[in-house]
Amino acid sequence: MSLRMALLALLTTQPMTGYDLSRQFSSSVGNVWHAADSQIYPELRRMHKEGLLDAESVPWGSKGATKTQYLITDQGREAVRDWQATVQPYTPDRDPARLKAAYFEWADSAAVAAQLRAHIQHFETERAHAEQQLEAISSREQPTIARRLEHYSADDHERILAFKLFAYEGKRDQAQHEIDWAKRGLKLVDQLGEGRVEV
Amino acid sequence: MSLRMALLALLTTQPMTGYDLSRQFSSSVGNVWHAADSQIYPELRRMHKEGLLDAESVPWGSKGATKTQYLITDQGREAVRDWQATVQPYTPDRDPARLKAAYFEWADSAAVAAQLRAHIQHFETERAHAEQQLEAISSREQPTIARRLEHYSADDHERILAFKLFAYEGKRDQAQHEIDWAKRGLKLVDQLGEGRVEV
Repeated sequence: MSLRMALLALLTTQPMTGYDLSRQFSSSVGNVWHAADSQIYPELRRMHKEGLLDAESVPWGSKGATKTQYLITDQGREAVRDWQATVQPYTPDRDPARLKAAYFEWADSAAVAAQLRAHIQHFETERAHAEQQLEAISSREQPTIARRLEHYSADDHERILAFKLFAYEGKRDQAQHEIDWAKRGLKLVDQLGEGRVEV
Repeated sequence: MSLRMALLALLTTQPMTGYDLSRQFSSSVGNVWHAADSQIYPELRRMHKEGLLDAESVPWGSKGATKTQYLITDQGREAVRDWQATVQPYTPDRDPARLKAAYFEWADSAAVAAQLRAHIQHFETERAHAEQQLEAISSREQPTIARRLEHYSADDHERILAFKLFAYEGKRDQAQHEIDWAKRGLKLVDQLGEGRVEV
C-alpha cells in the first residue's frame, strides 16, 4: 500500500520508466519509505494490470531499443485521493532496538556500547538525509520538488512545501531523539560499570 | 529473529505453555515487539524442532487433558547470548505516517486533522503502555519482572532493572515526540486554512 502510493505520488508529476522511478525514488520519497528495485518493478507491473497505470514503449538509447514508460491513470489519481481522504490505521509497535535494550543485562558492557554506537550511527545517517531533504525542499532546487512545483499553480506551492517540511522535520527530530536515547544509554553503561548477567 | 528472542527471553525465567507465553507476552515484552498468537505458536514449534526448546506434556485442567510446556535448552540460552553479543544491523526507514504527511496537500484540512488526531491517539496509547511498564519495573511488582528477579541474585537486580527502564523510557519519549509532532501538524493545518491541491 505505502510503496504503491509512493510510486503513484512520483508519477503524478510526469510519466517515468521503471529506471527513472527507481532513481528518483531513492533521492526523494525513498527517505521515508525505503524500497529496493526488486520491489519497485513488480509493483509497477501490478499497478499497470490493475489499471492504476498506463504503459507505453519509449525509445531508449541510440540502438533502437525501447523501455516501458508508466503514466498515472484517472483510477491511479483516484487511489491517491482515497489514500489521503481515509485515516490510515496504526499497527502495534515492533521495535527491535528497544527489545534488545530491554535485555542488555545479558551482554557485556562492550557489546552494549557497540550496539548503542551502531544506533547512533544509523540515526545520524537518517538525520543527515532528513536535513538534506529539508534543504532541498526549502531551496526548491531538488529536481523532484522543482518538477512538482512547475506542475502546480503558485497558489498551491505553499501548501505543497509546508507539508513536506513538516514530514521531514518530524523525521529529523525523531532521529535526534534516537541519538539522544542511545547517548543516555552509553552513560548508563559507564555508570553500571563492567558486568554481565548470566542468561 | 526478534519474536524468537522475545519468546526465549520469557522462557529463561521458567518453563511455560504456549498459552502462558502468549498471555505473558502481551503484558510485558509484547509492548516493544507485538506478536499475534498465530505467530507465537508456530515459532515455538520451530524452535523446538531446531533444538532451542525442549517440550514436555503437562496436565491441563481436571479432565486428564495435557498441554505442551516449553523449556529453554542450553542451545536456546546460547542463541540469546549470541543475540546480545552481536551488533544488530539497522534497516532503512519505512514510515507510513511520514510518507502520507509528505503529500498532505492532496487531502482537505479535515482529513489531515483526522489523520493527525489518529496519530496522537495511537501514540498516547503507546505512551500509556510504556508508563505502565515503567511503573511495573520500578515497583518490581509486575509478575514477569518479579519472577525474573527471583531467578537472579540481588547483585544482578540493578543491571536487569536499569536496562529495562532505559528501554521503556526510550519508548515513552518516542511516543511523546510523535504526539508533539502531530500537534504541530494540527497547528499548521490551522495556519494554512481550508484548501486542497488537486492530485
